[in-house]
Amino acid sequence: MRGRRKLGRGVAVVGAGMSKFGMFSDKDSKYLFAEAFNEMLSTVDKGIDPKDIDALYLGNFTNDFFVHQGHWGPIISDLLGLTPKPATRTEGACASSALAFREGVFAIASGFYDVVLVGGVEDMSKRSTEEVTQGLAMAASPYEVKAAFTFPGVFGAMATAYFNKYGASREHLMNVTIKSHNNARLNPKAQFNVSIRDIMNQRIEKAKSRGGPVPAWRDEKEFLRDPRANPVVAWPMHLYDCCPISDGASCVLLVAEKIAKDFTDNPLYVVGIGQGSGKGLHAKEDLTYFEATRYAAQEAYELSGLKPEDVQIAEVHDCFSIAEILHIEDLGFFKPGEGYKAVEEGLTRLDGPKPINTSGGLKCKGHPVGATGTGQLVETWKQLRGEAGERQVPIKDLRVGAAQSLGGTGGTCTLTILERR
Amino acid sequence: MRGRRKLGRGVAVVGAGMSKFGMFSDKDSKYLFAEAFNEMLSTVDKGIDPKDIDALYLGNFTNDFFVHQGHWGPIISDLLGLTPKPATRTEGACASSALAFREGVFAIASGFYDVVLVGGVEDMSKRSTEEVTQGLAMAASPYEVKAAFTFPGVFGAMATAYFNKYGASREHLMNVTIKSHNNARLNPKAQFNVSIRDIMNQRIEKAKSRGGPVPAWRDEKEFLRDPRANPVVAWPMHLYDCCPISDGASCVLLVAEKIAKDFTDNPLYVVGIGQGSGKGLHAKEDLTYFEATRYAAQEAYELSGLKPEDVQIAEVHDCFSIAEILHIEDLGFFKPGEGYKAVEEGLTRLDGPKPINTSGGLKCKGHPVGATGTGQLVETWKQLRGEAGERQVPIKDLRVGAAQSLGGTGGTCTLTILERR
Repeated sequence: MRGRRKLGRGVAVVGAGMSKFGMFSDKDSKYLFAEAFNEMLSTVDKGIDPKDIDALYLGNFTNDFFVHQGHWGPIISDLLGLTPKPATRTEGACASSALAFREGVFAIASGFYDVVLVGGVEDMSKRSTEEVTQGLAMAASPYEVKAAFTFPGVFGAMATAYFNKYGASREHLMNVTIKSHNNARLNPKAQFNVSIRDIMNQRIEKAKSRGGPVPAWRDEKEFLRDPRANPVVAWPMHLYDCCPISDGASCVLLVAEKIAKDFTDNPLYVVGIGQGSGKGLHAKEDLTYFEATRYAAQEAYELSGLKPEDVQIAEVHDCFSIAEILHIEDLGFFKPGEGYKAVEEGLTRLDGPKPINTSGGLKCKGHPVGATGTGQLVETWKQLRGEAGERQVPIKDLRVGAAQSLGGTGGTCTLTILERR
Repeated sequence: MRGRRKLGRGVAVVGAGMSKFGMFSDKDSKYLFAEAFNEMLSTVDKGIDPKDIDALYLGNFTNDFFVHQGHWGPIISDLLGLTPKPATRTEGACASSALAFREGVFAIASGFYDVVLVGGVEDMSKRSTEEVTQGLAMAASPYEVKAAFTFPGVFGAMATAYFNKYGASREHLMNVTIKSHNNARLNPKAQFNVSIRDIMNQRIEKAKSRGGPVPAWRDEKEFLRDPRANPVVAWPMHLYDCCPISDGASCVLLVAEKIAKDFTDNPLYVVGIGQGSGKGLHAKEDLTYFEATRYAAQEAYELSGLKPEDVQIAEVHDCFSIAEILHIEDLGFFKPGEGYKAVEEGLTRLDGPKPINTSGGLKCKGHPVGATGTGQLVETWKQLRGEAGERQVPIKDLRVGAAQSLGGTGGTCTLTILERR
């Protein structure tokens, strides 16, 4: 690229919706996407006729592997009554719908379309754990899989490298987990809308009612340190460091800035978009940062003219607790090696100066892979419009929020920055 | 969309390359894409430093299912030395890289990027026929697969409907096959670069040398009518009506129009892009046209200001012989029900007034699914620049060429129109 990045015309978000995230034996991709789409329609203040939607971009990762059905663009366009409008699937593993969002932005910014629906869906929980592990392994670098790495293993290796370089420990990862659960407790759409303290107390009550030995946990950390409550998956990743297997869908409605006020008096403007790619772990010089995240951040900050300190809230891709710490450093919110201290000091809490993952994050809101990217933007939409209910951040003059998605073990990363004016 | 379609800024093609298409037991997706990329580099008249490539879009359909590896964007970006530049996979079944092309156009037209590589790859031939059939079935509508339709079956049903409505017959499909083979005979990159007459004569010679009974075929049609030479697959689709299983890769280099002359004095300009989606067969009122193709054509003609008669040559998606006939009607080159007559009259031959599939088409050039969309544009590039060698069409002042891709049984369709100025 020669010269400073820019977009030919502005793009705004005027609606956002998501299904409940969770494990649903009776809901397939079509059902889930319809749920998200219907909620999105209800959020467009001045209404939208689906006939005015020019195109669909859909993120999905595993449907061809898990349900032996690819080519989901036209399936969803038909479901929503959009046929014969174009429908394109994007795939970047866990960042799939973040890519859909970006393509939607380009399609409008190019001048070709005015109204574009972007979203994602994933239907994972009906498979066996082994199948899901195999399916998700398709997102990693081929070398990682051949070396018998699973995802908890890869992120465990990153955590170990981070501990070694900066002196952090498992105790610091627990701070991420506790915060995420505290936020998700306030999010009715979250798969685990319960705090660690609640889980702990429920276990204690259950033990008491059974008349057996009662665990002696006095606080969340004692609970998380107990291997019976929080067993190791791939050290130092324990059960409560890992996001769950989830089903869900999400979508947002993008329109050209010039017509945004036709849909709402309170649109959000897409001020930053960025994307990067990264090599596999075998080729990385350092496991404690993501080159793709740093590149995506550079693109998005360059377009927006904003700095990391201008971003007031962010959803980041915490597929594992360590990932949240790495990302808040890579995005420039905290210096390398200081992310874990920021979490410890409460800076990223709902009531802190830089709230991170107010939704509960992937860890607690859930991680239906293809739905996660636009799902993060649904949360950003709610917070920036002051519609996040009990988990609304108390920041005065909240205007700028970001969402960051990671695919695989760092192969793809995106950053999106939205602004309320 | 409100108002006439337009793009914020122009986009040009300044390089194009493809691997040989075929069945290669020793070449995987990475090898194939590198082959296409290297040829592309050699076609950029004034040279291109890969470091100047801002982003990659990659079409692929089956790699997650066939080789259990998804997330191919960053794998290919790493292969080509593009990391950390963004890399996005698009999937629209057999139109996957046509979608990559379109997203590359949007990314540049939006103003965000100046130089974008778009391409596609597929590695199919190492699977069993059963696996390939299952993999390709993922491109169809779920209802078609549940009804036990295979792809030859679906297109067989379309052919039957067409015969019934317009009075065409198998004899007319043979005209398509004979033409495709005649063109492919002149294309060294084609999987089957041999004419039907050559195949027929080889068989006769072989029979003679063995001393057995010698077939009494006097011309290509007699050969194609003979069930021993051309067995039925799903009536009326016979072996020579169907494209093969192929491995291959292709790519083109897109740049902003304003810098096109930095790369070549002879760029091609992207004047039309269009895309549509279609319902499954169960929901179609008529099997003799593709609603997605008609919509894509409408978009592309609207953007370009061109009419069907302005398009001088076209590559169309002849996954089956009947598909070529349906598409040349849907694109407006011939009226509904007249496509088969046009082929019979030789209008679509290399030396006819409207040459179609000068490359040999999917039928003979091969159909490595994800590579087909940009592969068609490689042929368009060669023809419009007068570099198609023995198969160069003899049209005076050849300026406008088109490529049309179909995904699945009509779920996705694209039309791209390129112009030399």
